[in-house]
Order: sequence, then structure tokens, then C-alpha cells
Amino acid sequence: MPERAYAAGVDLGGTKILAHVFDPDEPSRRLAEVRCDTPRGGEQIASAIVGVVEAAAGQLDEQGLGPVTAVGVGAAGLVDAHGSLRYAPNLPGVIEFPLRHTLATRLGVDVVVENDATAATWAEFQVGAAQGCRDMVLVTLGTGIGAGIVAGGVLQRGANGFAGELGHMLVDPAGPPCPCGRRGCWERMASGSGLGRLARDAAHAGRADHLVALAGGDPDAVRGEHVGDAAAVGDPDGVRILGDFAWWVAVGIANVVNMVDPEVVVVGGGLSGIGELLLSPVRSHFDGLVMATEHRRPVRIVRAELGPEAGSVGAWLLATDHVAESARRVGGAAE
Amino acid sequence: MPERAYAAGVDLGGTKILAHVFDPDEPSRRLAEVRCDTPRGGEQIASAIVGVVEAAAGQLDEQGLGPVTAVGVGAAGLVDAHGSLRYAPNLPGVIEFPLRHTLATRLGVDVVVENDATAATWAEFQVGAAQGCRDMVLVTLGTGIGAGIVAGGVLQRGANGFAGELGHMLVDPAGPPCPCGRRGCWERMASGSGLGRLARDAAHAGRADHLVALAGGDPDAVRGEHVGDAAAVGDPDGVRILGDFAWWVAVGIANVVNMVDPEVVVVGGGLSGIGELLLSPVRSHFDGLVMATEHRRPVRIVRAELGPEAGSVGAWLLATDHVAESARRVGGAAE
Repeated sequence: MPERAYAAGVDLGGTKILAHVFDPDEPSRRLAEVRCDTPRGGEQIASAIVGVVEAAAGQLDEQGLGPVTAVGVGAAGLVDAHGSLRYAPNLPGVIEFPLRHTLATRLGVDVVVENDATAATWAEFQVGAAQGCRDMVLVTLGTGIGAGIVAGGVLQRGANGFAGELGHMLVDPAGPPCPCGRRGCWERMASGSGLGRLARDAAHAGRADHLVALAGGDPDAVRGEHVGDAAAVGDPDGVRILGDFAWWVAVGIANVVNMVDPEVVVVGGGLSGIGELLLSPVRSHFDGLVMATEHRRPVRIVRAELGPEAGSVGAWLLATDHVAESARRVGGAAE
Repeated sequence: MPERAYAAGVDLGGTKILAHVFDPDEPSRRLAEVRCDTPRGGEQIASAIVGVVEAAAGQLDEQGLGPVTAVGVGAAGLVDAHGSLRYAPNLPGVIEFPLRHTLATRLGVDVVVENDATAATWAEFQVGAAQGCRDMVLVTLGTGIGAGIVAGGVLQRGANGFAGELGHMLVDPAGPPCPCGRRGCWERMASGSGLGRLARDAAHAGRADHLVALAGGDPDAVRGEHVGDAAAVGDPDGVRILGDFAWWVAVGIANVVNMVDPEVVVVGGGLSGIGELLLSPVRSHFDGLVMATEHRRPVRIVRAELGPEAGSVGAWLLATDHVAESARRVGGAAE
């Protein structure tokens, strides 16, 4: 009987690279884990990924387990259908870089590269908060906004592999400028920096004394996390700001629900740590913002289950799917 | 050899019901056409559809052709996965009406019911402006906005059958109120009534003299169609207003492109009759509004090809697909 082969999942983020191998028979069982800092530049990143994958393979070997024969990567940036990073503002020095091709050549195994939020979406769909449904959306609210869509059980990639870029939908023509060069993008309003902006506006208006105290007395030092902390101890200003912020979160969720009509919207990213204090007002605002609330089954808006590992879990699942698909194709050809 | 069977396609609009039968071997060849006014009320509408389908079957019979064994309906409203009309503000007296079930019982044939824009999307994808691509969006700009999405060659329906309701995405929190009860919906800004509103604002500001003249001298009588007429004869005010309006059209198109990443966006509906005078500024604005323009293949924004018949053509195609699918299932079971 041939030795069992494994897939590795890699999350390529702006600051860290994280590699995981899970047990295909029991995905919650972690067999290997390696991380390193993200270097600057495409070739350097490819070398770092080769390093973490080889280290993960070494951990398998120590346990007497088989080799890594497929690698999935979830990368922070726009990834095209060939697995090339076309545009990655959070990965300095990387633009138009053929990541899949470079890794496949250097590792000599099958490599799948997807956008990190796309990979995380697949993870929440397969083994996370959206298990058992067929139509779902993941929205990750962090420094920026990432998102992915599963429709009819199919992970949506779009014509270029760029589907799910919800953060840059325009929701306010009078909104603040966005680093993307446009104005009023949802990401400006509903990410951690959007929350910080709302909080500083309140602080300067004298309506957030507890937040200013948390920030050491300087209204300009107020950050999004101070709002969550203040709301958690029942500060009315914190609760009110979180409610205002939840309206903006709900606007974007309602827009995507009107567009793709999912059963479940999974909210992940750092801000999902605020939990029900955020999700509860998001749900209330959402009911007033989505079309025909009273004629559709209620859309569940739930917290992500996989936390910061969703990207590497999703990348691992995509590589595992790829191996199974290849095996089916080879099996089919041999019949 | 058994007699050949046919499918009928029915477009159920707010004012007219239109039934078509096409030649399955040559879809551009029309075999039957019947129309009537849309009555008030669900049962009355069902009776009217039975009437037009029976009349169309009569036209086939006169030509010595076989019976109608499947009916597709594209209906103006939210249609759920069971073919029930859940909400149809443009069909007075219709709410929560089981249209598919009623028609199937009364006609004794297979019936498929979809949203009219969803049906039109399938028509433009299969035999219209988006033939040969796999990822496309149809946007119809008329009194309101309808839309549909094909992703990876699959018509998107969503969990409730409500996918593609782009008209009610919020694009301006300070925008005008919408009959849907919300504010700043894309439909308020980028439909015919949105164009009329922009034109009347310009008229009252004394910046649309030619339009006011076209409207008989009353600024409040200026309508969207006056803008197209004025721009067509080179009136600079008309061209400028159309350019401002095109920005709003492009905002919604950019939002949906960021979300689903299609190759082609097909623009239909009454306003598409303005042609390049509208589409050309839409394309210019779009390039500045969509994310990462320079890193994606250009998205083609083109005019719909099927005109006001897109709904009935699409309904006919969906019924034809349904018959073929049933035959495959029966064939498969018999093997």
C-alpha cells in the first residue's frame, strides 16, 4: 500500500506566513504548524513559503507520516485564475508576481493559489460557521474588509479570480477618500479604521469621555478597539458608537445580500471579536436595509468560527480538493 | 416517430403579458406570438397566462406543429425557488401567490417561473450580447432597475431565488427616498426616474433651456427621455446631464463588478436605447470606479441585443432547458 500523502495550507498575510497540515480524516486534528514573518518582495515571499512548507513536511516526517504532495496558498491580494498575484497593496514589493508557477517549480508539487478571503470563505463553508448551507457570504472586518461568496455550493471566483472584493463597493459618494484612489468605499466606513474614525469624531464632539480616557486623554489617540472595550463595560457612548458603526456594516451586508441572496452571512476578522455587542445591532439595521425582509427567509448573520486560522484551513481544503479532483481525473482516464 | 413538442416563453410585466414560441432548432425563428394586458390579481393573471399559452398552442396547431408541453414565465417580482411570487410591487393585487403551482395545475404541463430580469439575463447569455462568455451581468435600466448574474456559466438564483436585486443596493445615504421604504437605492439614481430627477434639477437651476423647451416650457415637466433627445442633437446641457447620470450608472456597475467579477456587463432596458451617448461616459466613469482597473482584463460594457423580448426569450430558454433536463433524467433512469 502506498504511503499516504498530505496537503499543506499556507496563509500569506501582510505580516505573517502561516502553514498548516491537517488530518484529512479528521480536519480538526493539526499535524504540522509553521510560521514566519512575511519578507518584502515576490521572490523572497516564494522562498519563505518554500521554507515553511519544507518545515511542515519535516514535522510530518518526524511523526512517520507521508510527504506533502499539494500546497494551497491563501494570499492577501488579487489573485488571478493562473494563481498570479496581480495586485497586493498589503504585500510590499509584490505586483504581477507568478506565485503559483514559482512555487510549483520550486516545490515540484501541485500548488493552488487563491485570495486569502476566498480561502477563508471556503473554510467557513466547509468546516466552519456556514456548514450545511449552500449559499453564503463571508465578510472579514479587520484593518480592511475581505469577503468571499459561495453560491449553490460553488466557491465564486469570477472571470479574473477577483470575485468578492466587497470592501471597495461605493456606499457614500460624500465619504472619506480611500487608499484605492476612490471615495466612500465600504471599507472606509465598516472596517476597524472606519470604527476608529467614528469614535474620534465622537471624541472631538465631547461625546466619548470614557473612550478618550482609555486612549490616555488624547481624542486623536482613540482607536476602534477602545470602542469595543468601552461597550463591553456598558459605557453608553461606546454602545452608541458601536450602534452607528453597525449601520455601516449592515449597509454593505444588505447590498451583497440583495445581490447574491445567501442563507448565511458569516462575519469574521478582528472586529468579529466584539461579538454580539456588534452583531446584534448589525442584525437590527440589516432588517431595515435589505429588500423585502418580510418575504424572504431570515438571513442568518453569525460570527466566524475558525478565527485567524480560516485562511490556512481554507488553503489546505482547496489543496485537498485539488488532489482529490486530480485523482478522479486520473482514475477516469484509466477506466 | 412521436410528434415534436414545444416550449412557450411568457413575459409577465406590469402592463403586458407576452407569450412566444420559438423553433428549438433555430431560436431566432418565431413560431407563435400572443399578447394581452396584465389584469389585476394573482388568479386573474394566471388565467390570462393560460389564455395566451393556449392561443400560442393554437397558432402552432394551425401550422401543423406539435403541442406545448412546457411553459416558462419571467415575472416582474420576487419569485422564490417554488415559483411563487412573493412580492411584486409592479403587479397590483399580487402578493405571496403560487404562480407556478397554479399554472401547472391548470395547464397540465411543466411550468418554470423566474424573475423577469433573471430570465432576460439567461437570454442575453445564451443567444444575446453575452454569448460565448461564462461570467456576465445584465442590468436593465428602465422605470426601475432589474438585474441578473451568470457566474461560471450558471444562472445565479440565490437561496430564495432573489439573487440580482441590484436596484436596491444603497449607494448614497443622503440620496432620495425610495418606494421600497429605504433611501439612496441605486434605482433612485440610475433609472429613468433618476435621470428625470437630475434633468429637472438642472432645469430649475437654469442649466437646461433646450430640455425645458422640449418639455413645453415647464421645468417640472422635464423627463428622462428629453435628456436623450437633447443629447442626440448635440445639446451641451443634455450631454452634460447624461454624463452626470452615467456616473451613477457606473457606480452600481462597478459595485457589482467588484462583487462578482464578470467579463461582460450587458445594459438593457429602455435607457439602453440612448446607446453610445450613455454607454460611452458609463465606460469612462467605470474605469475610475472599479477596483484595480489596471490589473484586470477590461470589462466589456455593451448594449443588450434582445430588446423588450429578452424576458420571453429567456423564459422560453428556461422551459426548453427544463424539458431537456427532464428528458436526460428520464433517459438516465431508463439506462
